[in-house]
Amino acid sequence: MHIYRTISEYKSYISQYRGRSTIGFVPTMGSLHEGHLSLVTQSKQANEITVASIFVNPLQFGPNEDYERYPRDEERDLSMLQRVGVEVVFIPNVGEMYPRPMQTRVSIVGISEILCGRSRPGHFAGVATVVMKLFHIIEPDFAYFGKKDLQQVALIERMVSDLNVPVTIVPCDTLREPDGLAMSSRNVYLSPSERQQATILHQALLGIETWMNQDENLTVLKLTQLIKQKIQTAPDAVIDYVEVLSYPDFQELTGLVAQARSFLVAVAVKFGSTRLIDNRVITFHKV
Amino acid sequence: MHIYRTISEYKSYISQYRGRSTIGFVPTMGSLHEGHLSLVTQSKQANEITVASIFVNPLQFGPNEDYERYPRDEERDLSMLQRVGVEVVFIPNVGEMYPRPMQTRVSIVGISEILCGRSRPGHFAGVATVVMKLFHIIEPDFAYFGKKDLQQVALIERMVSDLNVPVTIVPCDTLREPDGLAMSSRNVYLSPSERQQATILHQALLGIETWMNQDENLTVLKLTQLIKQKIQTAPDAVIDYVEVLSYPDFQELTGLVAQARSFLVAVAVKFGSTRLIDNRVITFHKV
Repeated sequence: MHIYRTISEYKSYISQYRGRSTIGFVPTMGSLHEGHLSLVTQSKQANEITVASIFVNPLQFGPNEDYERYPRDEERDLSMLQRVGVEVVFIPNVGEMYPRPMQTRVSIVGISEILCGRSRPGHFAGVATVVMKLFHIIEPDFAYFGKKDLQQVALIERMVSDLNVPVTIVPCDTLREPDGLAMSSRNVYLSPSERQQATILHQALLGIETWMNQDENLTVLKLTQLIKQKIQTAPDAVIDYVEVLSYPDFQELTGLVAQARSFLVAVAVKFGSTRLIDNRVITFHKV
Repeated sequence: MHIYRTISEYKSYISQYRGRSTIGFVPTMGSLHEGHLSLVTQSKQANEITVASIFVNPLQFGPNEDYERYPRDEERDLSMLQRVGVEVVFIPNVGEMYPRPMQTRVSIVGISEILCGRSRPGHFAGVATVVMKLFHIIEPDFAYFGKKDLQQVALIERMVSDLNVPVTIVPCDTLREPDGLAMSSRNVYLSPSERQQATILHQALLGIETWMNQDENLTVLKLTQLIKQKIQTAPDAVIDYVEVLSYPDFQELTGLVAQARSFLVAVAVKFGSTRLIDNRVITFHKV
């Protein structure tokens, strides 16, 4: 496994393979879990070279967010990546990625302002900008992103399409703990009691079909309320948002749930200072 | 000369050369003049394949600007490009470049708002966004831009640096008519009398050394006034701006001109409905 900390070292290594081997890319902020490794596995199945990056991007954290305390464990991350057979790790420091104040921003209107964008202003422009930088540095053929951050996936897919970025985005299924909690680097912040309560996100999302079956006239508003009530059975849960939107276009939905062809339920919930997100997409196959 | 009107046709042609030949790129809005052809010549000297694009980009025109009447003459443009030996022309229509409403914007703060950005809000974000699209489509090694649009060059250089775009920008000298007028596709708008008066832009810029030699305590404010007075000797000239800025960082300058190590004088002047720009960079080689 080759480890590069500078752009020029990576570029000089990869140039021999460019145009000869397909390159798969898994961008991460480190603090890896099985979800990240499943992205690597998918990349390895489809590409001759898999590059993973580890970079906690300051640009996507708000001033009161957890940039400083975001979990970092380089040694553990590198050994996990080696174990799953990553060929190249790109692990720059902040000075390598941002040698001077950034004047350029990539922004995506219509996706950035809703859901997590509402509670995290500037977050998605920070994500889009660093992903664009990483795409230009790594120059992959395919890039792998987890659907746990479905809004991020939609944003990057839109950016790639709008700007003709020569990279194919591969959205990958969310991995979950045995009790249903979506894997996240932020799960380590949870106290034992919060960790137990946090399963309520997935449980609430699993209730959707039951509620729909119980009431064929279930409205979007009522479904939203039912999910909120379910989440609030966890004593320490503080809801940031519960939203039902059309999918894949992330538009507001009203009226009966059954009238939507495909919809997304996205939730963000705080336990103490830890903010967790999860989502489900429901698609009807009408007969 | 290969002419491609769709991204997929261009991509499928160029894929055989990728990584084997260097690709030079000359983006244009058509209505070509000798200035454009000099960019092509420089590209041909340095690259095995030169790609020119012709695309009048609606995104960079304001609602009251000249998008509709911007001169277009495809046949003439193509024959000029053939004459100078361009290998590939990419000439998409608006639907090919913008198949759906754009949600993504690339913006550069600190360069976009000054000079032409003040009179043309949104212009430079439109330029940055289409140049980013074209870079991703063409995937050149080198891209050639004229210094007549020096602010545009600075903006694109900053974008490329900030976002690690794998393209080297080559700024090229402004070409001028025999009487000094900077070549521009918009010169065709000028009436015979306006065309004659338009030489005042270059004449005013040529006066800088004389004024500096006449007064070693010349201030930036005084130099600005002298240039304005000179331009206003043309009866139909309406000044949009005359600005003296530090170069290459485009910061405001005050005090004595002689204290600046390197400065830019940029002018924008309207004759009737035609807006012309020109500039000069003065660098002192102190002994």
